[in-house]
Amino acid sequence: MASERLPSRSENFADWYNQLVIKAELADYAPVRGCMIVRPYGWALWENIQDALDARFKATGHVNAAFPLLIPMGFLEREKEHVEGFSPELAVVTHGGGQELEEPLVVRPTSETIIGHMYAKWIESYRDLPLLINQWASVVRWEMRTKLFLRTTEFYWQEGHTAHATAQEAEDETLQMLDVYADFARNEAAVPVVPGRKSNTERFAGAVRSYSIEAMMGDTRALQAGTSHNLGQNFAKAFDIQYSDQNNELQYCWTTSWGMSTRFVGAIIMVHGDEKGLVLPPRLAPYQVVIVPIFKSDEERANVMEAVERLQRELAPFRITVDTREGFTPGYKFNDWEMRGVPVRMEVGPRDVAKGTVALARRDRPGREGKVFVPQEGIGAAVGALLDDIQASLLQRAERFLEDHTHQPTSFEEFEEVVQQGWADIWWCGDADCEAGIKEKTRATSRCIPLDQPEGEGVCLHCGKPARERALFARAY
Amino acid sequence: MASERLPSRSENFADWYNQLVIKAELADYAPVRGCMIVRPYGWALWENIQDALDARFKATGHVNAAFPLLIPMGFLEREKEHVEGFSPELAVVTHGGGQELEEPLVVRPTSETIIGHMYAKWIESYRDLPLLINQWASVVRWEMRTKLFLRTTEFYWQEGHTAHATAQEAEDETLQMLDVYADFARNEAAVPVVPGRKSNTERFAGAVRSYSIEAMMGDTRALQAGTSHNLGQNFAKAFDIQYSDQNNELQYCWTTSWGMSTRFVGAIIMVHGDEKGLVLPPRLAPYQVVIVPIFKSDEERANVMEAVERLQRELAPFRITVDTREGFTPGYKFNDWEMRGVPVRMEVGPRDVAKGTVALARRDRPGREGKVFVPQEGIGAAVGALLDDIQASLLQRAERFLEDHTHQPTSFEEFEEVVQQGWADIWWCGDADCEAGIKEKTRATSRCIPLDQPEGEGVCLHCGKPARERALFARAY
Repeated sequence: MASERLPSRSENFADWYNQLVIKAELADYAPVRGCMIVRPYGWALWENIQDALDARFKATGHVNAAFPLLIPMGFLEREKEHVEGFSPELAVVTHGGGQELEEPLVVRPTSETIIGHMYAKWIESYRDLPLLINQWASVVRWEMRTKLFLRTTEFYWQEGHTAHATAQEAEDETLQMLDVYADFARNEAAVPVVPGRKSNTERFAGAVRSYSIEAMMGDTRALQAGTSHNLGQNFAKAFDIQYSDQNNELQYCWTTSWGMSTRFVGAIIMVHGDEKGLVLPPRLAPYQVVIVPIFKSDEERANVMEAVERLQRELAPFRITVDTREGFTPGYKFNDWEMRGVPVRMEVGPRDVAKGTVALARRDRPGREGKVFVPQEGIGAAVGALLDDIQASLLQRAERFLEDHTHQPTSFEEFEEVVQQGWADIWWCGDADCEAGIKEKTRATSRCIPLDQPEGEGVCLHCGKPARERALFARAY
Repeated sequence: MASERLPSRSENFADWYNQLVIKAELADYAPVRGCMIVRPYGWALWENIQDALDARFKATGHVNAAFPLLIPMGFLEREKEHVEGFSPELAVVTHGGGQELEEPLVVRPTSETIIGHMYAKWIESYRDLPLLINQWASVVRWEMRTKLFLRTTEFYWQEGHTAHATAQEAEDETLQMLDVYADFARNEAAVPVVPGRKSNTERFAGAVRSYSIEAMMGDTRALQAGTSHNLGQNFAKAFDIQYSDQNNELQYCWTTSWGMSTRFVGAIIMVHGDEKGLVLPPRLAPYQVVIVPIFKSDEERANVMEAVERLQRELAPFRITVDTREGFTPGYKFNDWEMRGVPVRMEVGPRDVAKGTVALARRDRPGREGKVFVPQEGIGAAVGALLDDIQASLLQRAERFLEDHTHQPTSFEEFEEVVQQGWADIWWCGDADCEAGIKEKTRATSRCIPLDQPEGEGVCLHCGKPARERALFARAY
């Protein structure tokens, strides 16, 4: 409820986030340690994210399917790095139907293994390739320190798993899906991201190369917002995923996997939110417009509601809600919907009815500055244009913030300073020990080696060794 | 692949079903006992089912959310009947993150308990009611005898959970959702169903009253295709779900739950399928139309494909696929798509191109009888009308089958006979011992006490006691 105030975003970003998630009824803590309930408002946002991603997956030739939640423990052990990476995080089913199981089952932390097992069964020849499957599911990873949306024991995601005939096709797919994620983030969520390759230390357990998109949160910390992995032939060899090629010779497949999760809801909150609460990008907002009818007498009420019903019909192409709650003042409702981040508030009072106008208040510019009075006639077009403008403005603002807080320090001293309040873009040697040293001194980790690289070479800002690539370092969620 | 023949449906319905599910690539057996993989073709069918149901849920005021997969064991124990009903079927997580858990967690078999726990937290006053939430999820019930889609250890479903201020509202909701299921079954899946109340023996563990829709499969056995439960105040009292009423007095809520699952995919297969394979209702079919281009020379190919591309554009409002696989004869493709149940096959060959026509073959009437030649011009309208006609015909045929195989025996001897090949509609006392006796003698169980009851009373066909209601008995899946 909007009655209690939010903590200050500028003074205590973490508290602001935690309380906003609860107050806006996006999610709640579950009675099981580290788990969350995604409440209807949060789930509606996630459904819009799903729709936008799913359309992109289908447009690039992928289909959805569903693989079991329970995976035999032995499956994970077949890929050495994979089991080492995931063992500490597993939830294990030891009993089923009142009996102790002969082999324990794990609740999937990710599905490369069970999908690999099935791909080995389904793929026979080159004609069956590429195999391009995605699933929408939840996965469980036992987490010690959790935070709603950002890191929870169970989380919701999609995981794409593909098999290809050649190494090149697998790499192309991996990069294509990274691009899909970047395009979604930018054009649906108004979240600018840097796509890049992960360092070896940060690579997915079992991958040959991992890529990610990295987004800058409102406190300048980085969030890995989507990942795409080239698994080479690691899983194909562990699970015997083979195909007979045009010459009828058996070959191992090349596989990929890629995922984006409810973590992205956290990114949207932390990129766009302000002191008053959520600011949701119009393309993903559960409600794009909230109509608040304002009246005192029964006569005013009748006139106002008649206009509201007419406006509702005009606004049918948009996701709208009308706040008819009784016993709350308009001011209370304004604050409440601002906290919930609805992009446009439409106020309709007796004077508006008389003049044939409505007041439109845009969420991204609170106060007088963002309020305009427009004719009721042609309201659909006016609202559409306003939503487009809000979407574009949010992206522009986030881009500027990302630029303003990305630095190119020229000494490690400067590096240490800038990563307290931003990202550092530096020449880096790529060495794991060097990375560990940087982390120990600054708490900043390598976020990615951006795909977009300058010409030339340099020397590692930390250790002075030759460096062929620039990398982004930042403190991260 | 269509190369191996299906078992005969009329001679061995069970084998026909099991092999058809595999051959049509709807689902596959998982490496974990009793679990299934829903393959892309099966999942696309389920997604269409989801869309049709979800639209109905939203139209009746429900919203979606997501509750955790893992539930503390203690939660189930709070409702006595509930834990008794579900205990034998639980999968239990005893270890998490490498440690033995203090309290074991169960993988949800259904979510009344954890949702009840959260409702107690969220509901404060009558203003918060009704609370109308649905979730799409998978659940796990350890099953001994499994069958793809019909009974699997993990299955996919939706579960609605609602809380109300009065007993009447809860009962109204329970019946409303039963009606939503019946409407979906009939108008989307072309599956006629009988809505009714379950006997006390067949009631959901923890419910006051359970309702179901019952469908007749192609072998005349019954399938419970959706259930809706009035939970009274049982869970409200177990989880302390209370609200303060208009007089500021605390009251327990009245709750309901209702679900439909991937089991319904099995119903669609078994209601409409024939000797050649699946027959999918147009409104739910992943592909409504398959276009098979037919050509021999390169020149023919160019002409045919040009026409196909034009037809594809005209058919954009429909779900279509074009079978351009090389190395397969048209005859092979016809059989393959018939087996997969695509409602309409469009054949486009050189003669069709020359004449400006195409051949349309309807899946529900295989052979010459179901084939027509229509002009390419106005193809969209022709295909639309044909799909509507197929949808209507499937429903009509299924209705006739249900009628023809529903009997009103007048002696128990006759009852024993008719339930071997159909359903028995009889006066029944409702007594649990009587029900057990019938089951022991005939393997038929009470499916439901139809909502639609005749006037008057009778005597129980089995035990001769007074009977105020008629009930349907049948052998069931």
